[in-house]
Amino acid sequence: MPKPPLPEDTMALLRRPNPAVVAVLMPDGQPMSVATWYLVEDDGRVLVNMDAGRARVAWMRQDARIALTALKDGEWYTHVSVRGRIVSWRDDEGLADIDRLSRHYGGRPYPTRDRRRVSAWIEIEHWHGWGEARAKD
Amino acid sequence: MPKPPLPEDTMALLRRPNPAVVAVLMPDGQPMSVATWYLVEDDGRVLVNMDAGRARVAWMRQDARIALTALKDGEWYTHVSVRGRIVSWRDDEGLADIDRLSRHYGGRPYPTRDRRRVSAWIEIEHWHGWGEARAKD
Repeated sequence: MPKPPLPEDTMALLRRPNPAVVAVLMPDGQPMSVATWYLVEDDGRVLVNMDAGRARVAWMRQDARIALTALKDGEWYTHVSVRGRIVSWRDDEGLADIDRLSRHYGGRPYPTRDRRRVSAWIEIEHWHGWGEARAKD
Repeated sequence: MPKPPLPEDTMALLRRPNPAVVAVLMPDGQPMSVATWYLVEDDGRVLVNMDAGRARVAWMRQDARIALTALKDGEWYTHVSVRGRIVSWRDDEGLADIDRLSRHYGGRPYPTRDRRRVSAWIEIEHWHGWGEARAKD
């Protein structure tokens, strides 16, 4: 898998509101995966945001290693996978981060306001693209 | 996460040619994920099929633990995630398995005929659904 920086066109694809799946590790090392929203920040880190009560939040805090695959909407032969680790956590006070994600994907703030949420940022260590996002090497 | 058997409507969703992502473990335990075709067999096991030369084939043989998330096409708030392990491997002689996958997703045999491929079957140990596929418990 190539290392960062990602090519401009791959980053452009990754910055779209793509369907995505994130994979994290359970305490015994078993991978588990779930659909997710994500957002590439200006510094290249990838934001994900979870309900603070989810079991996987504790698992992700215990083992920061993570993988994420984004599928091009409606044409998922083109996809980009990244792997790396969570390098930063923040309580999503005021739900500012989930609102950014919700606006990115649906154009409006997140509707559920009564649950605590938490944000995590992924540092991309390796990436791999297919279809239009294939590495030109 | 609930255990099998999956409810009928969740299985019906899983049997569709959904966009999907599989997560496996690298030798150091890091998860990696990639878009995949999959097919639910009559016995409930899930077939995936890889080019025999892929690094992840070796990794999957070394650690059989695996997760897979299937997204409902065009409406991916509805998704089903399963986790479990690979319980069976077979060289895909004559490319019969990848042809089944290719017909399931695209209605025709797999176009690339000059690469060896290998099939693996996942035994589902736990599952989780969202949206229409949410567990009614």
